[in-house]
Amino acid sequence: MTGADRVLESSSEDVAVAVDAAVSASSAWAATSRSARASALRAVADALHASSADLIPVVDSETSLGTVRLTGELARTVHQLRMFADVVEEGAYLEVAIDHANPDSPVPISGDIRRWLIAIGPVAVFSASNFPLAFSVLGGDTASALAAGCTVVVKAHQGHPRTSDMVLGIARNALRACGVAEDVIGLVHGREAGRLLVSHPAIAAAGFTGSVAGGRALADLAHARPHPIPFFGELGSQNTFVVSAGAADARSEAIAEGLANSVLLGNGQFCTKPGLVFLPDSASGQQIVDALSDLIGQRPESPFLTQAVRDGFVVGTERLGDASGVTQLSPARTATAPSLWECDPGKLGSAVLEECFGPTAVVVRYRDQDELSGLLDRVDPALTATFHTEPNEKDFTTWLLGTLSSKAGRIVANQYPTGVAVTASMHHGGPSPSTTNSQHTSVGATAIRRFLRPIAYQNVAQELLPAELQDGAGAGVIRRIDGSLFF
Amino acid sequence: MTGADRVLESSSEDVAVAVDAAVSASSAWAATSRSARASALRAVADALHASSADLIPVVDSETSLGTVRLTGELARTVHQLRMFADVVEEGAYLEVAIDHANPDSPVPISGDIRRWLIAIGPVAVFSASNFPLAFSVLGGDTASALAAGCTVVVKAHQGHPRTSDMVLGIARNALRACGVAEDVIGLVHGREAGRLLVSHPAIAAAGFTGSVAGGRALADLAHARPHPIPFFGELGSQNTFVVSAGAADARSEAIAEGLANSVLLGNGQFCTKPGLVFLPDSASGQQIVDALSDLIGQRPESPFLTQAVRDGFVVGTERLGDASGVTQLSPARTATAPSLWECDPGKLGSAVLEECFGPTAVVVRYRDQDELSGLLDRVDPALTATFHTEPNEKDFTTWLLGTLSSKAGRIVANQYPTGVAVTASMHHGGPSPSTTNSQHTSVGATAIRRFLRPIAYQNVAQELLPAELQDGAGAGVIRRIDGSLFF
Repeated sequence: MTGADRVLESSSEDVAVAVDAAVSASSAWAATSRSARASALRAVADALHASSADLIPVVDSETSLGTVRLTGELARTVHQLRMFADVVEEGAYLEVAIDHANPDSPVPISGDIRRWLIAIGPVAVFSASNFPLAFSVLGGDTASALAAGCTVVVKAHQGHPRTSDMVLGIARNALRACGVAEDVIGLVHGREAGRLLVSHPAIAAAGFTGSVAGGRALADLAHARPHPIPFFGELGSQNTFVVSAGAADARSEAIAEGLANSVLLGNGQFCTKPGLVFLPDSASGQQIVDALSDLIGQRPESPFLTQAVRDGFVVGTERLGDASGVTQLSPARTATAPSLWECDPGKLGSAVLEECFGPTAVVVRYRDQDELSGLLDRVDPALTATFHTEPNEKDFTTWLLGTLSSKAGRIVANQYPTGVAVTASMHHGGPSPSTTNSQHTSVGATAIRRFLRPIAYQNVAQELLPAELQDGAGAGVIRRIDGSLFF
Repeated sequence: MTGADRVLESSSEDVAVAVDAAVSASSAWAATSRSARASALRAVADALHASSADLIPVVDSETSLGTVRLTGELARTVHQLRMFADVVEEGAYLEVAIDHANPDSPVPISGDIRRWLIAIGPVAVFSASNFPLAFSVLGGDTASALAAGCTVVVKAHQGHPRTSDMVLGIARNALRACGVAEDVIGLVHGREAGRLLVSHPAIAAAGFTGSVAGGRALADLAHARPHPIPFFGELGSQNTFVVSAGAADARSEAIAEGLANSVLLGNGQFCTKPGLVFLPDSASGQQIVDALSDLIGQRPESPFLTQAVRDGFVVGTERLGDASGVTQLSPARTATAPSLWECDPGKLGSAVLEECFGPTAVVVRYRDQDELSGLLDRVDPALTATFHTEPNEKDFTTWLLGTLSSKAGRIVANQYPTGVAVTASMHHGGPSPSTTNSQHTSVGATAIRRFLRPIAYQNVAQELLPAELQDGAGAGVIRRIDGSLFF
């Protein structure tokens, strides 16, 4: 298909065909050895890396994110695929546990029990507008689902359909070349196709990155099915950023600069953007406000990812302009220019407490810990919460750490929340409303757990089970045997 | 309170008071050291064990389960509490991962990231009718939630309110005696109280064992909240039991006896009861049918747990009697007597495919693997699936193992599914409709994962974090550091 004759809305028949293909490929992919699955993920990563020169201009033409950012995002996407290959190869994610029969124990075990995690089944992946590579066709959700042994049907984001088709082709060619059925990954386009996908009886789980409204609507569909499925939605997030009196005194200029960069990175189109900034009501707090206002107010406009994102930003900043107790600190410019606002601490309302996706942030000044405590009580949970404090403010920092920990999935100290490292220790998630499932992550190695379910085999002959579950070396996987962990 | 003046329906104010108490105790309990939490769990276990002589007659008077069964169930309940104390002490459940700052890695890590799992918050536990000890006030859900560092509000089952109050008293006294706030555990009574509980904004998760209808209604409430919470419902399950031609030839008598015992154990009131039995259409299959029919048909009536369970059983067996293609194999007796039925393989309908909780099972005969395959396609997923085959039927067994694995959480070979071992390797769960969340278990050590959520600390000073997350020995917990596992 070329851009000209593309069908942007997959029909219900297209969706059915895509899911049927994913179902057909499902058993073989789930049964593929870990080493073969790791090889396939690496082959896909290599193919994506090799296609960089052809791919990036297409992505840029659809997203306006620029070559520098997209080159970095492609490297991250390749890294994610390779990281999950390593995860599969290591095998700890299987959570293998074996208890041998022990009829005489206090609670008798009548036959050997051998547990591990298996692929949950075909997964629907909803692409993100703001990560056309890292959270789209071959992004983190797809990589973790494929690693788990699940086949995937991606719902392309309408913001980058050509990118999506191109990446799909890269993936399917690479899979075919290493002897894997290309139907391990499929693609559909359009919102209605997305709804059909999450409602399809053969889809076993879904991963989503996007807006609160869109995510919640799909989560409702997933829950309303005759057989509900897990829906892992990474939704909007109004991320808190707190500066202590001491940090403002010590580092006002650096904090203003770091914060402005974090707010404006990628034109503010990151779910980890610090949108709600609590500053001390002090002279150095004022210095941060002034510097931040200058830095944000002087930043030229940048293009938005999509018309919908642009429109959402305009609506959000209009709501800020109309909200009681909210004033604009940066100079009034066009409706789409980066902006900084201030909210009276007595007037925290929904315009301020809800995320405005794009290059904007709201400052709130607090007099003391008591007032800050009351303000933080009103803030919704989020993906991240950041604080800047000084070493000599240990009591305040300890209190803040405890308070913010109840409200976020990642706590950042004296750094900035944008730029999510893809590692084993990363958690990218948070209590509702920032995600639909606070118990799992969409970034980092443990994201694979979303697409697995446990199964236990009782008294099943070992030779019928995979090596990981047999007595002996267990294919080199760490296991819990009769209660103790063994490498 | 005595039985005479008891309020069986907690008011909305009672519920609010109970949740407020759980919230008040929450931070301190979550912050309690692992060793202190393990000690408290053991103290509660010891107190429960010590109360056996006083407690069991009360439980028996409310449930008619008999002293032998209840003595065993109490031992299991004590064991569960002690097992979770061991889990907490070991600390592997924390899933600690640390990645040190590495700005030069392919995907830069700008500050140390330290991840672990923390208590999700106050948990609502819904007691089961059929486990007045092991899945009620101090049962597996409560034990795993307390172990996770969550406070608990239990909704008592209406079938054993005095037992519930008595066990609550035992728990609160034991906690107080070891210096823990007794409000770590609370109790409410009545269905409306249960609904209020799962809708209460301060409740962060719920564990439930009970019927499909009741569980689904509560799961809907949990999902419909402004901020949805995870709901772990272990619902009804029509468990499949398959006998091969070879196994029937070799062991018809033993299989009939084992199966009858499994169907009738606890008067059939187990969620793992084998309710749907596929037998070969052969002479030895007929022998199993005859023996099973005799064993079940001769078994005297036993009391049911509650009037509601009794009524449900009568309705279920009436549905079987009215269903087209279904005939009663055991002699016609009273509506509450144990019974065996047969369904024509061409007539599998909802009366047969849905669980009938109580002492009854349905036999279906199959001619060959093809017919069995078509029949198993129509069966809903369940908690367990059991097969009996012979070593010389390897191809058939391999096929069966694969087929049943897609339909159940625990696969049992040549044994019987009732009697769930409480171990690290146990999985008690299954795809919908048998649970509301197939990715977690309600029995076994990993049940603790239901009540935890990940959090990552980026660049936070080590001395502000617990020992488990600091460099050094990490409080003896297994951890993933810079990608590799270390004890």
